[in-house]
Amino acid sequence: MTKAGRGNFFEDFTLGQEIVHATPRTLNEGDVALYIALTGTRFPIHSSDPFAQDLGLPRAPLDDLLVFHVVMGKSVPDISLNAVANLGYAGLRFDACVYPGDTLSARSRVIGLKENSNRKTGLVYIQTTGFNQRGEVVIDYARWVMVRKRDAEAPAPEPTIPDLPERVDADDLLLPEALELSRYDTQLAGSEALWEDYETAERIDHVDGMTIEEAEHMMATRLYQNTARVHFNQHIEKDGRFARRIVFGGHVISLARALSFNGLANAFRIAAINGGRHVAPTFAGDTLYAWSEVREKSTIPGRADVAALRLRTIATKDTPCADFPDQTEDGGYHPDVVLDFDYWVLMPRRGD
Amino acid sequence: MTKAGRGNFFEDFTLGQEIVHATPRTLNEGDVALYIALTGTRFPIHSSDPFAQDLGLPRAPLDDLLVFHVVMGKSVPDISLNAVANLGYAGLRFDACVYPGDTLSARSRVIGLKENSNRKTGLVYIQTTGFNQRGEVVIDYARWVMVRKRDAEAPAPEPTIPDLPERVDADDLLLPEALELSRYDTQLAGSEALWEDYETAERIDHVDGMTIEEAEHMMATRLYQNTARVHFNQHIEKDGRFARRIVFGGHVISLARALSFNGLANAFRIAAINGGRHVAPTFAGDTLYAWSEVREKSTIPGRADVAALRLRTIATKDTPCADFPDQTEDGGYHPDVVLDFDYWVLMPRRGD
Amino acid sequence: MTKAGRGNFFEDFTLGQEIVHATPRTLNEGDVALYIALTGTRFPIHSSDPFAQDLGLPRAPLDDLLVFHVVMGKSVPDISLNAVANLGYAGLRFDACVYPGDTLSARSRVIGLKENSNRKTGLVYIQTTGFNQRGEVVIDYARWVMVRKRDAEAPAPEPTIPDLPERVDADDLLLPEALELSRYDTQLAGSEALWEDYETAERIDHVDGMTIEEAEHMMATRLYQNTARVHFNQHIEKDGRFARRIVFGGHVISLARALSFNGLANAFRIAAINGGRHVAPTFAGDTLYAWSEVREKSTIPGRADVAALRLRTIATKDTPCADFPDQTEDGGYHPDVVLDFDYWVLMPRRGD
Repeated sequence: MTKAGRGNFFEDFTLGQEIVHATPRTLNEGDVALYIALTGTRFPIHSSDPFAQDLGLPRAPLDDLLVFHVVMGKSVPDISLNAVANLGYAGLRFDACVYPGDTLSARSRVIGLKENSNRKTGLVYIQTTGFNQRGEVVIDYARWVMVRKRDAEAPAPEPTIPDLPERVDADDLLLPEALELSRYDTQLAGSEALWEDYETAERIDHVDGMTIEEAEHMMATRLYQNTARVHFNQHIEKDGRFARRIVFGGHVISLARALSFNGLANAFRIAAINGGRHVAPTFAGDTLYAWSEVREKSTIPGRADVAALRLRTIATKDTPCADFPDQTEDGGYHPDVVLDFDYWVLMPRRGD
Repeated sequence: MTKAGRGNFFEDFTLGQEIVHATPRTLNEGDVALYIALTGTRFPIHSSDPFAQDLGLPRAPLDDLLVFHVVMGKSVPDISLNAVANLGYAGLRFDACVYPGDTLSARSRVIGLKENSNRKTGLVYIQTTGFNQRGEVVIDYARWVMVRKRDAEAPAPEPTIPDLPERVDADDLLLPEALELSRYDTQLAGSEALWEDYETAERIDHVDGMTIEEAEHMMATRLYQNTARVHFNQHIEKDGRFARRIVFGGHVISLARALSFNGLANAFRIAAINGGRHVAPTFAGDTLYAWSEVREKSTIPGRADVAALRLRTIATKDTPCADFPDQTEDGGYHPDVVLDFDYWVLMPRRGD
Repeated sequence: MTKAGRGNFFEDFTLGQEIVHATPRTLNEGDVALYIALTGTRFPIHSSDPFAQDLGLPRAPLDDLLVFHVVMGKSVPDISLNAVANLGYAGLRFDACVYPGDTLSARSRVIGLKENSNRKTGLVYIQTTGFNQRGEVVIDYARWVMVRKRDAEAPAPEPTIPDLPERVDADDLLLPEALELSRYDTQLAGSEALWEDYETAERIDHVDGMTIEEAEHMMATRLYQNTARVHFNQHIEKDGRFARRIVFGGHVISLARALSFNGLANAFRIAAINGGRHVAPTFAGDTLYAWSEVREKSTIPGRADVAALRLRTIATKDTPCADFPDQTEDGGYHPDVVLDFDYWVLMPRRGD
């Protein structure tokens, strides 16, 4: 019996396989405070119990991205310890809100497998679901990674590539139960700009920059119990491609979201993530900036108080975003872009 | 509509203006633990629920300075984002204790305005009040900053300079409701030295030093949701006057207070802050030392169990304080002094 | 009255002396989250309330080592502020579990004293006990340190060296009250390897490495309110033997324990610590690796669900442990070993 897990290789996965991930995690008030200390986030729904209660919630829910990172972290030892690359995720929806005291666990199902032509690696597609202690779904998404084979000669299964959505349909967005925005206070939220004030194709510079330290990204990543080695082991990474530890991409997303408060203060909930591309690695010492583009606007059936914006948030390193550094015409990116993140947020409507 | 806030300029303020600051914040147990981890504070009233209960409180209140920093942080986006300098604060009194679960919000009123003769900047005086979720005042103070004008030609209001107290009167100090010190345990508090044991003009070297790291001061400052840019953005600051990020002055105060435990272990509550001067900037890598001088002693009307000391705590960088580095005769300071902090503490009396 | 404590010297201790240590500490949910963020620990009993409840506990107890570090930290100002060396500890047993909301305090008794022949230092042996707010013992251990004399000429007491156990007897291990493992879930725990699967003399490489940053070890050590100066003051240490701050040995133990999850995932409780040797100092920038050896296996009287393993966990810096770097034949150690830690863990039995 091999006791120290060395992770699964491509040939260890089978189509339809169900994997229960280890280490359930009770999130608590300490996670709330640490998430604020590590990201500087200021969205009041996650910062203030009375603000959340005014919206019909029992208390301030945990940040949506914290939930994402914790659930993602659980799948690392089973799915991506031998990954060459984390290629993407799709169709991510947040469902039940998570509150301090709730316990998250995660399961994944293998929904696609395709060996690469070099036979040394293969693509593994999984559907991961995070649950609370009552078995309610809190998050659900597809993810695909390129995983090493233990043995290039090992036989490969029939290639199966799942049909993944380019984006979550606005009609499929899930709203927190009991959410009701008639008492939403824009003064306390820090901005008068509501859903009606944003236009498709509008671009917003989030202005501020945030420098990242090694201790910060490692503390964040350990908080999520994510064990991916490239974030933690300088003794190995000093001889690697970048000679440095790589900042967990989830921490980059969290910092970009925190920066986006400055311009999107009323985007109080991430309802879905359509996809995210870590265009370039981020390292300690880099200063992150961000800007966002409104890709779509959508009302929500039956709701006059809340609607959705589809955003694309771009983060750069060491480059302010007043000029909106972006994809280039050849399909590449401005050299300082590190993140291209596509997601749906909920925002209050101005009402009548 | 400009969505990304760029802060107010001098000409945006009007005398008597009331400002509701954004992002109410529920403080919790995570803040307690992080404040200990970031400062090393050991005052038992903030560390132990039973110790606080023995003094008549429902449980351990949050550190007074944590409350100050959180309330101050809320005012930054409205007041000091375009500040050239944070010039001072005065007349600060702590009122109701803050406990885990309490939610802080803050409002400010403009109490003075004076354009500078260069017409490029002006002084803004505000009175800031922090409240808990029941509307009870937890802190109240005046603060003044020098703020840029957007347009030097913009007309200026009549100069109004408020009358600010040089110090809080001892008779005006507020005691936590229900506080009663007959069961105060000096063994658990770590020192036998009570109010009677201190003399006016006495000087106390706090002995230890504490080195500051970038990750620590940034985590502390983000915990307070203070967004002042000089603390976070190395990409900008590398080209600034100091080529480095500046440590938030509040973190310097917190570290000096934590160091002062060694000599002032029974100074269990900061009741008021008379003023504070950040004599020189502090940077990551600096090692803080501190010493204190007893400026005044005052009994409290009707109380035999508790009295007040007015302290001046001086913090230095990279200079031990056995020789009490201080102001110089020309009104300047020893070159390594970074903080001159004047405040009232409560301390148990020896009794009969 | 000297107000700023400078610690006790050898001649300040008397045999049988009882010392009540200062600063009781209510541990809370923030400590849970910070301990995960600082160490990356993944043992589910400390991470998940429902997992702990399935084992009969009221909720997830705090990590055993966190309890050890907090109690140890309390004794530093009284015992080891003038220590030349922390020489060892013995006979450590964990007793009542500690839960968020519990308040720890500590007392020590001097159980041995022996002046060194140079008359400048002496050995002080103490028995330290940590209590919760109900007076229940949570931890108990002997510890000995070499302490400076204030005055070499001061008379020394009769030498008394206590009889310290080489190891805790397996029959004396204490189990958490109400612990019952019939519902222990190995899938959620992350490993199928139970007590029966380990063999005496078996060696396990824990594979991963973790790099330590200054901010991290200082935050951990302050969280435990441990004030030992070598961890915090670079201004002094730059001129010291290593020109650097030294990482608190307790943080090294915690990281080694967290790394040991990979191979010992079901070692759900440290029941006792037989001894620990900090073979070499650890510094920020070092990457810790670890391996473990099974020294003994023991059943527990009357229990078919749980048994004990005596482990030796060796941590190294900047040296992977696939080759099990160890003690050398001359009684020294491989040059990269920093920790040799001997302890008992509880592990579920496979049952019938």
